[in-house]
Amino acid sequence: MSRFWSDAIKRLTPYVPGEQPKEAGITKLNTNENPYPPSPLAAAVIRDFDTDRLRLYSDPDCTALKEAIADHFAVERKHVFVGNGSDEVLAHTFAAFFQQDAPLLMPEFTYSFYPVYCTLYDIAYKQIPLRDEFVLNLEDYNQPNGGIIFANPNAPTSRAIELGEIEALIKRNPDSVIVIDEAYVDFGANSAVALTQRYDNVLVVQTFSKSRSLAGMRVGFAIGHEDLIAGLERVKNSFNSYPLDMLAIASATAAIKDQAYFEESTQKIIETREWTMERLAELGFISLPSKTNFLFARHRLLEAAELMGYLRTKKILVRYFSKPGIDNYLRISIGTQEEMQRLIDTLEQHPDLFKLPLNQND
Amino acid sequence: MSRFWSDAIKRLTPYVPGEQPKEAGITKLNTNENPYPPSPLAAAVIRDFDTDRLRLYSDPDCTALKEAIADHFAVERKHVFVGNGSDEVLAHTFAAFFQQDAPLLMPEFTYSFYPVYCTLYDIAYKQIPLRDEFVLNLEDYNQPNGGIIFANPNAPTSRAIELGEIEALIKRNPDSVIVIDEAYVDFGANSAVALTQRYDNVLVVQTFSKSRSLAGMRVGFAIGHEDLIAGLERVKNSFNSYPLDMLAIASATAAIKDQAYFEESTQKIIETREWTMERLAELGFISLPSKTNFLFARHRLLEAAELMGYLRTKKILVRYFSKPGIDNYLRISIGTQEEMQRLIDTLEQHPDLFKLPLNQND
Repeated sequence: MSRFWSDAIKRLTPYVPGEQPKEAGITKLNTNENPYPPSPLAAAVIRDFDTDRLRLYSDPDCTALKEAIADHFAVERKHVFVGNGSDEVLAHTFAAFFQQDAPLLMPEFTYSFYPVYCTLYDIAYKQIPLRDEFVLNLEDYNQPNGGIIFANPNAPTSRAIELGEIEALIKRNPDSVIVIDEAYVDFGANSAVALTQRYDNVLVVQTFSKSRSLAGMRVGFAIGHEDLIAGLERVKNSFNSYPLDMLAIASATAAIKDQAYFEESTQKIIETREWTMERLAELGFISLPSKTNFLFARHRLLEAAELMGYLRTKKILVRYFSKPGIDNYLRISIGTQEEMQRLIDTLEQHPDLFKLPLNQND
Repeated sequence: MSRFWSDAIKRLTPYVPGEQPKEAGITKLNTNENPYPPSPLAAAVIRDFDTDRLRLYSDPDCTALKEAIADHFAVERKHVFVGNGSDEVLAHTFAAFFQQDAPLLMPEFTYSFYPVYCTLYDIAYKQIPLRDEFVLNLEDYNQPNGGIIFANPNAPTSRAIELGEIEALIKRNPDSVIVIDEAYVDFGANSAVALTQRYDNVLVVQTFSKSRSLAGMRVGFAIGHEDLIAGLERVKNSFNSYPLDMLAIASATAAIKDQAYFEESTQKIIETREWTMERLAELGFISLPSKTNFLFARHRLLEAAELMGYLRTKKILVRYFSKPGIDNYLRISIGTQEEMQRLIDTLEQHPDLFKLPLNQND
């Protein structure tokens, strides 16, 4: 704390991202990164880039990238906003639309950055409990609001909901902006992008960090009605004219054009996810049904915090949240088949695992 | 305007950056970019980068880059903050320190993004007139304030002030944060970084976009007391955990270590600036004394707006601000010797130039 800080800054509780270890030999299943490298087309664009051009500012409008995203989703460029990772896109979204009199609604358990943005922009918010087994039911959002945000699939719970439920929510709230954070949508859920073309109050946010294997390049985007996009551009251009550098623009533009690679790598992850879920079940874990590149799992008998610590000693990182209600779950990113085999093998070696009465019905 | 925008967004007047033309054959002297490519060390780091690593998030703490900057300035790493260009660093600075009861003080003519940040964060501000010939006199800032920001050298006026004046200002305002935006300091002015080690209320902001030829990679930084840096980290970590991608971190880290290249390229620009100033004087221009990589110049007889338009037709871009008080000046970035020769040759061909009585004493 410093006497020079603005009062608004003193009250902040910053987001804490998952650990990015600097040591080698770590099996890193803690930040939902893609285990496969980015598209070879993206790699080639970087390798062949004329670095002399870096003396110039990047395109503040990111036209090439917006056009590639628009083409991919069959929307117009004016419906596309891009930013420095979906985190920056989300930050601008909170500033642009959610500073309202009524509270923003969000699930009790969801991406834990949302309440941080609310504090940053002094936005009142209300966390809506999930149903049993962490089911998100949008009927619970029928109450006065200054906007609604949720992730689909939700994180860290990994569950997805159907588009029909989302469309009904959008129709019930014609005067609120509904933001759907689709960071994980490409691993088995259905995107609401088509709804952005029929309703003026819905914004879909996606990222290149997960299904496009470009977490290290920091590119996210939003798709929505042109008036919503114009609002985001106003905030962005009042904050930083050029949040995407030339290589981020170029590599993301190349990546989104490589549909074959995208389908192959996401399919591999989905297959490994299902395999991992079965193996974990055999070891006494219960995973929620996942449409993401991670599993949200608890063990029938062992405590999550202890398991996280055990895996850490074996150089396997998984994510653990100490928040009551989810503090007995692990969020386990889906790695390569080999990485998940290593996870299973390591869990099998846990000294207490087979002392426990796993085969009982409980 | 959209009914969905937050009131705070409706009142914004976004910053408009200089044009980034997509057509070829333009002599681009409008956004103060460096005419020379980045250090070959930075280029090599990008070319040789293992792009498979891009699937992972970048280091949220940017440790390697902070250490390289700290080493360069002989400060500790805890005194260094990095961001996505100095624009993002400045935005976080306004949020962290300038949301105060008393108004922020800034020069009437300075970087035109400052008032935009004030509107974004609802910060009251007061613009202090410059003296004759756009001289910034810090004695004019002896009034109640919630912070003071100015650029040194100032933009678009190109003038620098002495460290003694800055130190006196810091001493007179022990309860305010004094921010010195040194985007252009490497072209002949003296940096206040040493003052950050003696006073807890001063923050120096610099960029890799100008003297380091990395505008296209979006890297800026701040140096100050660790409590000020901690305040910036709080805001950054409440906004976007990873604003610098892996290649931005790697290329900037390499660039700041290449002192020989830095000195050679900045010296060439200084020499070209002095040459250009003399040639422009021969054509009837009056330039302010510059410690930057640009000239702020008016013509004795021809109007700046007309000259800007004339140069545009000849595919030479310079920056023009229509703001009263500076609306008869051009801001001309210093390019290569060849580019500046082209500027001079083109101005010499202006149809009205030698019809005018330039040799009179006026």
